[in-house]
Amino acid sequence: MHNLQAASRDRVAKAASDILARLRANGPRVHCITNTVAQNFTANALLAVGCVPSMTLSPEEIDPFVAGAQGLLVNLGTFDGERRKATEIAIAAAARHKIAWVLDPVFVDRAPQRAAFARELITRRPNVVRLNHSEFSALSGKAPSREAAMEYARINRIVVALSGKTDLVTDGERVMTISSGDPLMAKVTAMGCTGSALIAACLAVETDVFPASAAALMVIGVAGELAAEKSSGPGSLAVAIIDALYNLDGPTLIARAKVG
Amino acid sequence: MHNLQAASRDRVAKAASDILARLRANGPRVHCITNTVAQNFTANALLAVGCVPSMTLSPEEIDPFVAGAQGLLVNLGTFDGERRKATEIAIAAAARHKIAWVLDPVFVDRAPQRAAFARELITRRPNVVRLNHSEFSALSGKAPSREAAMEYARINRIVVALSGKTDLVTDGERVMTISSGDPLMAKVTAMGCTGSALIAACLAVETDVFPASAAALMVIGVAGELAAEKSSGPGSLAVAIIDALYNLDGPTLIARAKVG
Amino acid sequence: MHNLQAASRDRVAKAASDILARLRANGPRVHCITNTVAQNFTANALLAVGCVPSMTLSPEEIDPFVAGAQGLLVNLGTFDGERRKATEIAIAAAARHKIAWVLDPVFVDRAPQRAAFARELITRRPNVVRLNHSEFSALSGKAPSREAAMEYARINRIVVALSGKTDLVTDGERVMTISSGDPLMAKVTAMGCTGSALIAACLAVETDVFPASAAALMVIGVAGELAAEKSSGPGSLAVAIIDALYNLDGPTLIARAKVG
Repeated sequence: MHNLQAASRDRVAKAASDILARLRANGPRVHCITNTVAQNFTANALLAVGCVPSMTLSPEEIDPFVAGAQGLLVNLGTFDGERRKATEIAIAAAARHKIAWVLDPVFVDRAPQRAAFARELITRRPNVVRLNHSEFSALSGKAPSREAAMEYARINRIVVALSGKTDLVTDGERVMTISSGDPLMAKVTAMGCTGSALIAACLAVETDVFPASAAALMVIGVAGELAAEKSSGPGSLAVAIIDALYNLDGPTLIARAKVG
Repeated sequence: MHNLQAASRDRVAKAASDILARLRANGPRVHCITNTVAQNFTANALLAVGCVPSMTLSPEEIDPFVAGAQGLLVNLGTFDGERRKATEIAIAAAARHKIAWVLDPVFVDRAPQRAAFARELITRRPNVVRLNHSEFSALSGKAPSREAAMEYARINRIVVALSGKTDLVTDGERVMTISSGDPLMAKVTAMGCTGSALIAACLAVETDVFPASAAALMVIGVAGELAAEKSSGPGSLAVAIIDALYNLDGPTLIARAKVG
Repeated sequence: MHNLQAASRDRVAKAASDILARLRANGPRVHCITNTVAQNFTANALLAVGCVPSMTLSPEEIDPFVAGAQGLLVNLGTFDGERRKATEIAIAAAARHKIAWVLDPVFVDRAPQRAAFARELITRRPNVVRLNHSEFSALSGKAPSREAAMEYARINRIVVALSGKTDLVTDGERVMTISSGDPLMAKVTAMGCTGSALIAACLAVETDVFPASAAALMVIGVAGELAAEKSSGPGSLAVAIIDALYNLDGPTLIARAKVG
């Protein structure tokens, strides 16, 4: 229950660089149950880091799609009965084939049914839950803090990736903060959803869930920072971050990642 | 029943500038029932002017989403049974919570069922209907003209925002024309839908529906003009207009808005 | 059963240029049953070449939408029961009104139900099937090759547009290869789907299916090449290709198309 020392920091950044290299080398397929607002941007981000996205939401065919994938994202945005059914099938397929998955409980603070479903999904043992402060409060019933996140992670045996001005990743024992990124990223829709998809991607090439989750947030944070430097607003940022994800290399990631 | 004089023109542009400032200051949440083609672009445009978009279409949960929002858009694109049901629930929630809403009857000129549903929705008293000339004809049964738009507004006690080379806004008594914008905007999908979403946003911060509607069309028109100046085609225009919406300030809006 | 000679090559490029001019002049409406990942990009590409896209998937209203269109795309991505029903209605409307249509059997290599449905659709006589190598194998049961594509085209009396590093178009007798394009295009989601939509667009203005299909692939290939020259990654490529499609003229198409 302590922050990273300088040596750890270097090790962590190096691990992220290795994970990124494996994404590019292995090109895992990541199946995304995600909202229609986020689909295009998420697919392009996954392609940019070397993955193959697939996005069908159809209960009739999601089982083989997930069964053949290496990672799974379950995002609750634009959620309905059919989506719920598809989610159940996808999670069962992931369990059967031992595919790691990430839960993104978008907007659970807005609708009680969605929060109830998210709580039910937590009992199905996702490897990671990525969410913002309001969503954390709605899901856990606690004010968001380092301690609350650690406790939630421990109780549910899950990695919590809590997004904010500074991101926090914890598995209940280890904690890492990532302060890469740029405030303009919050003005691009689906940026959080895309971060969750990148976590699912990293889980596909790294079985240790804690560094894999941190790697994804470092990658998107550094890419966002690089993109913001050449953007004139959120429109050009959304374009430039895809380019930055595509062009990001290990040495740049190691040099720029702000982890603590 | 007269056009604006010079003094009125300045007052109108100043009012639009104030409304834009309130969007940035208050950050209202605008719930959008919109087609899947338009969702991403619409969400980014709303974020760019300072709003928070939400877009769930699920009948199971749209009630709390609308109940907690400050504005509502009902766009009929990619329309089906479930969408229709969600629309009914959303409108009821808006009425219950006195949330202003905008109807965008996309493509009612293409399918009779859609036109019939749009006519039914008009009786549910949206605050504004925004549509193009073909859609106006299909909905009202009249050729689009200043007089026809005013009559339709009066009869239905609604503000009509009629898009075209020059936009016309009328509440049946007052009329305003807005000729900001650029022809290239018509080559970007969802530009009209996004205009409707911006009207819903402005209604969230201004109870006088007529100037609020006009403000939204001035904002998107001026942003489009600024964006076109630095674009090489509709691809770069779609990006640049999000940047322009983000960077637009009151003085620029006042200086550039072409209202009559 | 031979490749094009130099004279043929010039004729073919000239034919593509004529087809592009007719797209711009006639502005056909192209109805797209396509996945939600691809809708926005596809709509913008169709607008950029002068077409009017429509995209409703609702079984309740797709019949009049297709009946009034000049071209139809059936893409199987994000496929479900309602989509399947809409597809049946759309194909019946296309047959009734003699509207040419294109089948894009996305990801049939991933799910057996989808492959079965695609095979059933082939018996409904689409004018063109556009697909990649894996999809061709799953659909035809044969390894992808020039001969296999020709045989499949002959047996099913269809034009096959087989995408890859080099695209191949065949009607079973004639064969053409198109090697325009850039490898970066494969890193932009929905690029293939958009190619299929452009084939549907070209079929709307040219009844000879073979040159129409080839024209579409030349147009997107050359636009992609021009766009790649000024892009820094797949994000900027996706924007630049829309601009390039918008700005592409006949002489540039003729000068740059790499056909064999």
